[in-house]
Amino acid sequence: MSRRYEDLTGPEIANAVSASSILLLPVGAVEQHGPHLPLSVDHVIAHETATAIVEECGDELDIWQLPTISISKSNEHAWSAGTLSLSPDTLLAMLRDISRSISATDAERLVLLNGHGGNTSHLETALRELRYEFGLKTFLMHPFLPPAYGGASTENELGMGIHGGLDETSVFMHLRPDQVRLDKATRRVPEALAENTHVKFGGSVSFGWLSNDFNPDGYIGDPTGATAERGKQLFEHSVAVLSEAMREVKTFDFGR
Amino acid sequence: MSRRYEDLTGPEIANAVSASSILLLPVGAVEQHGPHLPLSVDHVIAHETATAIVEECGDELDIWQLPTISISKSNEHAWSAGTLSLSPDTLLAMLRDISRSISATDAERLVLLNGHGGNTSHLETALRELRYEFGLKTFLMHPFLPPAYGGASTENELGMGIHGGLDETSVFMHLRPDQVRLDKATRRVPEALAENTHVKFGGSVSFGWLSNDFNPDGYIGDPTGATAERGKQLFEHSVAVLSEAMREVKTFDFGR
Amino acid sequence: MSRRYEDLTGPEIANAVSASSILLLPVGAVEQHGPHLPLSVDHVIAHETATAIVEECGDELDIWQLPTISISKSNEHAWSAGTLSLSPDTLLAMLRDISRSISATDAERLVLLNGHGGNTSHLETALRELRYEFGLKTFLMHPFLPPAYGGASTENELGMGIHGGLDETSVFMHLRPDQVRLDKATRRVPEALAENTHVKFGGSVSFGWLSNDFNPDGYIGDPTGATAERGKQLFEHSVAVLSEAMREVKTFDFGR
Amino acid sequence: MSRRYEDLTGPEIANAVSASSILLLPVGAVEQHGPHLPLSVDHVIAHETATAIVEECGDELDIWQLPTISISKSNEHAWSAGTLSLSPDTLLAMLRDISRSISATDAERLVLLNGHGGNTSHLETALRELRYEFGLKTFLMHPFLPPAYGGASTENELGMGIHGGLDETSVFMHLRPDQVRLDKATRRVPEALAENTHVKFGGSVSFGWLSNDFNPDGYIGDPTGATAERGKQLFEHSVAVLSEAMREVKTFDFGR
Amino acid sequence: MSRRYEDLTGPEIANAVSASSILLLPVGAVEQHGPHLPLSVDHVIAHETATAIVEECGDELDIWQLPTISISKSNEHAWSAGTLSLSPDTLLAMLRDISRSISATDAERLVLLNGHGGNTSHLETALRELRYEFGLKTFLMHPFLPPAYGGASTENELGMGIHGGLDETSVFMHLRPDQVRLDKATRRVPEALAENTHVKFGGSVSFGWLSNDFNPDGYIGDPTGATAERGKQLFEHSVAVLSEAMREVKTFDFGR
Amino acid sequence: MSRRYEDLTGPEIANAVSASSILLLPVGAVEQHGPHLPLSVDHVIAHETATAIVEECGDELDIWQLPTISISKSNEHAWSAGTLSLSPDTLLAMLRDISRSISATDAERLVLLNGHGGNTSHLETALRELRYEFGLKTFLMHPFLPPAYGGASTENELGMGIHGGLDETSVFMHLRPDQVRLDKATRRVPEALAENTHVKFGGSVSFGWLSNDFNPDGYIGDPTGATAERGKQLFEHSVAVLSEAMREVKTFDFGR
Repeated sequence: MSRRYEDLTGPEIANAVSASSILLLPVGAVEQHGPHLPLSVDHVIAHETATAIVEECGDELDIWQLPTISISKSNEHAWSAGTLSLSPDTLLAMLRDISRSISATDAERLVLLNGHGGNTSHLETALRELRYEFGLKTFLMHPFLPPAYGGASTENELGMGIHGGLDETSVFMHLRPDQVRLDKATRRVPEALAENTHVKFGGSVSFGWLSNDFNPDGYIGDPTGATAERGKQLFEHSVAVLSEAMREVKTFDFGR
Repeated sequence: MSRRYEDLTGPEIANAVSASSILLLPVGAVEQHGPHLPLSVDHVIAHETATAIVEECGDELDIWQLPTISISKSNEHAWSAGTLSLSPDTLLAMLRDISRSISATDAERLVLLNGHGGNTSHLETALRELRYEFGLKTFLMHPFLPPAYGGASTENELGMGIHGGLDETSVFMHLRPDQVRLDKATRRVPEALAENTHVKFGGSVSFGWLSNDFNPDGYIGDPTGATAERGKQLFEHSVAVLSEAMREVKTFDFGR
Repeated sequence: MSRRYEDLTGPEIANAVSASSILLLPVGAVEQHGPHLPLSVDHVIAHETATAIVEECGDELDIWQLPTISISKSNEHAWSAGTLSLSPDTLLAMLRDISRSISATDAERLVLLNGHGGNTSHLETALRELRYEFGLKTFLMHPFLPPAYGGASTENELGMGIHGGLDETSVFMHLRPDQVRLDKATRRVPEALAENTHVKFGGSVSFGWLSNDFNPDGYIGDPTGATAERGKQLFEHSVAVLSEAMREVKTFDFGR
Repeated sequence: MSRRYEDLTGPEIANAVSASSILLLPVGAVEQHGPHLPLSVDHVIAHETATAIVEECGDELDIWQLPTISISKSNEHAWSAGTLSLSPDTLLAMLRDISRSISATDAERLVLLNGHGGNTSHLETALRELRYEFGLKTFLMHPFLPPAYGGASTENELGMGIHGGLDETSVFMHLRPDQVRLDKATRRVPEALAENTHVKFGGSVSFGWLSNDFNPDGYIGDPTGATAERGKQLFEHSVAVLSEAMREVKTFDFGR
Repeated sequence: MSRRYEDLTGPEIANAVSASSILLLPVGAVEQHGPHLPLSVDHVIAHETATAIVEECGDELDIWQLPTISISKSNEHAWSAGTLSLSPDTLLAMLRDISRSISATDAERLVLLNGHGGNTSHLETALRELRYEFGLKTFLMHPFLPPAYGGASTENELGMGIHGGLDETSVFMHLRPDQVRLDKATRRVPEALAENTHVKFGGSVSFGWLSNDFNPDGYIGDPTGATAERGKQLFEHSVAVLSEAMREVKTFDFGR
Repeated sequence: MSRRYEDLTGPEIANAVSASSILLLPVGAVEQHGPHLPLSVDHVIAHETATAIVEECGDELDIWQLPTISISKSNEHAWSAGTLSLSPDTLLAMLRDISRSISATDAERLVLLNGHGGNTSHLETALRELRYEFGLKTFLMHPFLPPAYGGASTENELGMGIHGGLDETSVFMHLRPDQVRLDKATRRVPEALAENTHVKFGGSVSFGWLSNDFNPDGYIGDPTGATAERGKQLFEHSVAVLSEAMREVKTFDFGR
């Protein structure tokens, strides 16, 4: 039986989805990723990761995969042709509407799997709103945690491979080998930023940025050495880790 | 070269999308369709129709296929487990945000291809809002026009095969043969309604309805005789007609 | 006893309005109608039609006539001096507020009688919202159905007498003979549009338009042959048909 | 020539309305007024007063009478059948939309003539918003200033004839003699309130109230001695005073 | 024990705040007050007045002083550097949120003590909204009632010492003697306005204004003779009167 | 000269605030902090830290201290008496309004100094919105970074001293020694949570929580060993670090 929510009928959902089920909502983006990656990167990665997690442990943990949200909040890339961006108000309204809809089922756990770092803080906020308004237990995980939120990035990129950099490019080469134009890419690392102690990606002081604040090409990192093999390792590691995390989600009860 | 908008990079979009391009946005739904059809029906049909149109005439007319909106306004089915519904305010906000994003390209024409009758009036309203606010030339077409908006429905269904009925079921059997559970379906036609002259689907007087107003199963029509072959004919005919319509869209200038 | 809602006292409304009553809300517009018709056309027609329906069958069907909404959504005419337009958000908010207010009575049926084609799709959307949010049975009827929604228009106008054309001008000559300046009017039919098969008024593909998209005068049709007599016939026919429709509204129960 | 805005055509408005014109917008209400007065009281008074002002000095001052807003903010009476109330958000949105529309003309002065005390503070707020957002010179006047805003009320009513009391009832008897049911009315004065020095109508401390906070009948005052003659005098005096005020509006320039 | 709400713990609030308590919310502003007064004037006065009232009768009447709202609606001064202004929508949202929060206590009475005349009408509106939505008994008082709402202003200022004038400057000299730059101030009275009978501050006709409508310096009044002594008298009188008013608030029950 | 923004006049702000100035906005909260700490904790800490930073380097870096926002988003504590909470929509509206106001000055840099962990993600989101909408360079710093965002917490608290724990209690004892009721406090650490690898505070998976999800007392940590001396060290260290960070803010230009 398919574990895609949308493949079931209404009556089947009513039966299959219970208080111990986990709903998994992949959230992506459609936004510029420099000259070497297509607009689809974030939602492809979110979707493929969700699919692989469900393959890994969907039956074991009773996970239902919701349809991937392709377009989300990408206003840091709104200056670029191609980007399709929702305002934070629209994105939060959408998540509230979806959670209200879920209330017609017995589900109690909703996991957002976020492929786009530009959503991270707003989805963090949404976790609480959805818990407060609808009583859901809510979770946020990432295929690859953004460096600004504690994720890793390579030394060569000075920890700033945050958008179209080595890892993201590699993973996408693994998932969609035909769609990467590595020859178009070059190193785009805002080196002076690394000299800061506090105000930098992952530093103790956050800052507001648009992707063309750093350079007119709008990607940040050094994708030049990306390989599909590296991407495969990263992807498989991510799926393994997130599957493990899903097991914790399954029984999570605030430490009570 | 792919004609999926999301498969291009930002700089490619800036080059490829011009004032004579057509952007095609499929809009679907995730909502109950009775016991015989999955939740995905509307967005699968919207997506597949868009894809077929683009195959047919995408290069000729310079059409770019935007990512399919899966979840839209389905509050007539909000009573049912499985349905995921946005409020009309959220859906309009989303369309405004997307249209604002499109303003970063040179595109002037946006076609909404709507697979869900419950959106029709609201997308009609959006056509004007998007033209008024963003200056876009906007269009709305349907794989299958809802009977309430002048579309056909079989005689046996008394013109009321509006949700999960013969034609929709047939088309879905053609597109996803494995996902139809025809044995679960039976005739659900609100016959007394057909006796009305004015207040009925496609009558001169519209009425507000939720899908369980008619019967607790929430589908309206008679899918019992559905076949994939009938669906194939309907689908191919639709694609042909809509491709022709896209040619009119290409040069449309308000009759001036 | 008056059948105007506003002529009763609060306690009288509490007594008189029951679950079998019908509330009738005329919705008009204040918007340019070319050089030959005043701004008031749509709300005058809505108001006079409602009044005539109530005279015809108000006692029989227990209809209560709500005060006419004069100003509604007319942004297709916002370019012109004289037009007073609400945004779709404001109009929907107003209808929600009025419906919430109605919940303090026992009424279950609300009919919107819409004199302005520019509202049609948004009022269609509202029908469902008001049913969903307030449990009302909601209906939408038109003195004259817009051609884009299946209404008729003369052959000479190529089916495009949609704003200030022959029929509307005639009806207004019947209702307010002193206020029509027929000498100012001429033929304004976007003829090239009629050559389209799909993208046209009443075609299978809708399009977003502002009234000055067609010509700088902002009316569409050919009012030159309008007469009060033609208007009288059209008006009386409309009242007769809508009174018949109100009888169906009275007992409407979704075909159950 | 009519001075009703809606009686002109779009092109006529463009010509007739100039920077020295005054637009006059009557604002009423549809709300319970006790057992002796119909729901229409406030908008009838606003409308009739506006009409009389325009007769008195419309040509002299170049005043254009906008269509009367019948339904406004009446949530202090929302408990009662009959009341139709907008939220403050909806009312403000409506006024913003109308003012935006007015920007398509050359008009610079907008007068709100408010027949409903429950709107007063919100229209005061709107005066500034409309000036700030649209650059209009904005004014608020009342047929009869509410006691809470410095208006008079009879000694017998202890200054609290604020809703359905002697003066309002008298004026309505003058305007619509057939619609007053004086035999149903009795004295409804919250006498203990008059003993307060600060917290009372017109006192230095305002308080939030719903009309059934005072008594279950929801009117406040003593209409028992109302007469049409008294109403005639009040009405004519009001028209004279407001016409004089309109002359000040005509040349008002912030004392510069 | 402190009577500042924020000085208590959550459990203490649960115990201490009862149905007979009064919550006192000072509301100020951060806005230009001419060249002689700092931006803080309105919230300093609101805060100090609240503090003095609580000292005077806080224990007697069981008053709890909420934290002062510093920034509120000041868009009449938005043209000036320094002003921090909320929209009316934001201010009302904030008051609704705070009132919703208060519902977690047993409190039934909320007093807004408003130091900024530009808020007055909107807070009046809020009184009803908060009563209607949350069932609170709500009150609005002012350290010094604005002339437009019946407050006094000196004869020399022709009743127009409304912003940065003699009394406000004097009171601030009393409260913050070091922060007044009286040498920078001069007389700024829009004298021609005083000749109006109706359209003036405190007249029967209100008007929308921004503070630079009168003069480019943006204050209105004549602060030149201000003294700390006069300020002391005004302040102490205000505290005495408002304490008396609080006693009325304590037992207020709509005259029932 | 004072470096409190509100202590200046409008004209002084126009002169003093330049493109190289830094505006510093402390954001606190009014919310339950268990039985041992008052509601004011977060805004007192934010305010005192801001004040100390300005003392340390205000003149050197041309910092202007905006008035502290006392009440912000605290809905995780909305269940408790005492908490005053804004919705995320209201808080974002407030920040947009304040930033719009700042546009009337020449300031280009705005630092949010956030004393309340419950705001962190939403303020992160706001950083980008304010940059995108108003072109400001925006920054977020914390007196004490929440553990969920990479901040430290003691080993004894298993890294979960997140609300009313050892460090916060100590700092508050330093700042307001009289207001801490340490005898009321006991250890409240959700120990089972620490066994998780992913779903925990500071783990790779975030979760939505309300403060009473963990225990009915609503604080999380072990304040029992708190001392003013520890608080003093923590506070002084924080001020030193943040002053250093402000120097980076001063010259920050996205690494260009």
